[in-house]
Amino acid sequence: MLDCGLRTERTITERLRGLAKMPAGSALIAGIGDDCAIYRPRGSADDLLFTTDLFVEGVHFLRETHKAADVARNALVRSLSDIASMGGAPRFCLASVCLPKWATDKWTDDFFSSLASLAARHQTILAGGDLARGETFSCDVTVCGAVPRGTALLRSGARAGHEIYVSGALGGSALGLVNGKGKAWKRHVNPEPRLALGEFLRERLRATAAIDISDGLSLDLERVCLASGIAAEITEPPRFSGATPEQALHGGEEYELLFFVRPGTRVPAGFEGLPLTRIGVAVGGKAGVIQLGGSTLAVQGFDHFAHAKL
Amino acid sequence: MLDCGLRTERTITERLRGLAKMPAGSALIAGIGDDCAIYRPRGSADDLLFTTDLFVEGVHFLRETHKAADVARNALVRSLSDIASMGGAPRFCLASVCLPKWATDKWTDDFFSSLASLAARHQTILAGGDLARGETFSCDVTVCGAVPRGTALLRSGARAGHEIYVSGALGGSALGLVNGKGKAWKRHVNPEPRLALGEFLRERLRATAAIDISDGLSLDLERVCLASGIAAEITEPPRFSGATPEQALHGGEEYELLFFVRPGTRVPAGFEGLPLTRIGVAVGGKAGVIQLGGSTLAVQGFDHFAHAKL
Repeated sequence: MLDCGLRTERTITERLRGLAKMPAGSALIAGIGDDCAIYRPRGSADDLLFTTDLFVEGVHFLRETHKAADVARNALVRSLSDIASMGGAPRFCLASVCLPKWATDKWTDDFFSSLASLAARHQTILAGGDLARGETFSCDVTVCGAVPRGTALLRSGARAGHEIYVSGALGGSALGLVNGKGKAWKRHVNPEPRLALGEFLRERLRATAAIDISDGLSLDLERVCLASGIAAEITEPPRFSGATPEQALHGGEEYELLFFVRPGTRVPAGFEGLPLTRIGVAVGGKAGVIQLGGSTLAVQGFDHFAHAKL
Repeated sequence: MLDCGLRTERTITERLRGLAKMPAGSALIAGIGDDCAIYRPRGSADDLLFTTDLFVEGVHFLRETHKAADVARNALVRSLSDIASMGGAPRFCLASVCLPKWATDKWTDDFFSSLASLAARHQTILAGGDLARGETFSCDVTVCGAVPRGTALLRSGARAGHEIYVSGALGGSALGLVNGKGKAWKRHVNPEPRLALGEFLRERLRATAAIDISDGLSLDLERVCLASGIAAEITEPPRFSGATPEQALHGGEEYELLFFVRPGTRVPAGFEGLPLTRIGVAVGGKAGVIQLGGSTLAVQGFDHFAHAKL
């Protein structure tokens, strides 16, 4: 049986990676295993980034607590955040939506209006999609983004000695999920994709690796370490007001960016009002091992199978 | 309430088209309203085609009658067929899959193996996707294809006097859905995307418009007529053995190509063993009106809302 858990996610992903071998000379220069796939069209000045994210009733949200506009924003932000983590600018999106009977005309209108409105705010055109009826609501959003050829930020570019930074304060989304109110709840239902920051990291700081914190700092940092073949030594990350250290280390759906820069890079203390905080350094050693305050950090994912990005 | 019906599909699609206005000078040169969106990357020799299709348990298939391999093939063929209808060659796909508890390891393995196998047969790389758990199975497949810049076959290029052709024999999929056995059932669960034919229509016949018959000849012909601003006069299309005239005219999930060519174009009687049959001619008059044997044909869709492609 498929069950929740890190092993299951990895097993399926590894299996798919095996099934999805990329032929030599393919215009697809990155497939399963990073935040986005990368496609290089013949003669194009840009590489194109592709990512797709499912948002399912009862798994990613509850009808009782999320308004139509919250659902739309969350469904789109997941993919926009993947584009941000690779330093890209979103270009267009496709949305496939399965609508159950409870979705009234007003709910459906609110959903699509919010989707289109957030997309427009990020210069992302709603280019198509598919509609179906079904028993539970689900929405799959595919976003295409662009970066100048060869410049996408990957998970695999970090090396021992590179410094590790994180944007914002962590744990707010996990806290909001628990207490269901206040600023933390707003943070949970209304996250912001860090698109301008992603472009800044790529163009100005020439970051060597980046990922968005969708499944928790510990798990997402481990992913970069494994892809780059490094270990990491970190301190406690900055915490959202009221969040526990565990929520900051392991809470998902933050959509802040975790990034690596070469030693000596002058990283400003903030970018457009968002703090950028040094939390550690990449080191040699067994790939994927994270030390926090001298102890090995036990990586905890955030409902892994629900977030099994390929 | 959202309900099944042509009006509802059109209402939602029109509303989304309004929400999704394309800015002047956008690299997205076609959005909602054709089989694929078309994106033109900076400097690229190719235009890229994008299409996405949902395949949902209880709507598009029943667990009792469809094996995992059938589900995978059908889920992918829908999008490959959209690429075929625009004369494109598929390049890669993304698959987002919602797996319910009944999906055993074996079922899931069979599903992904079949998906990867059909994709590979059509030089389509499985480049990524997303996994979630959920109560019902659904699969959303996005395919990216390519055509040389400016050559995609659109719905809007037909003019009065152009001749109307269809590939294959129609009604087999609808017949198979009714009788659940024999060649017609095979046709229903194992359709073939007409990719080589699509490229032939674009390169050799320089077809002026094309669409794949996913929702029935009458509805899909009406779509081309409306997009091109023409009417059509047709005869009975070639019928799959055992299919009724109604099944041939209105049955969906055929994945044959309906195409238009300039008068005088030498269309061969077949292409790689597949018959190509002249069924009529485009005429002036009220856009979208189809005459069959001197009477106006009542357009009937095939479970429209379940196939509400944007």
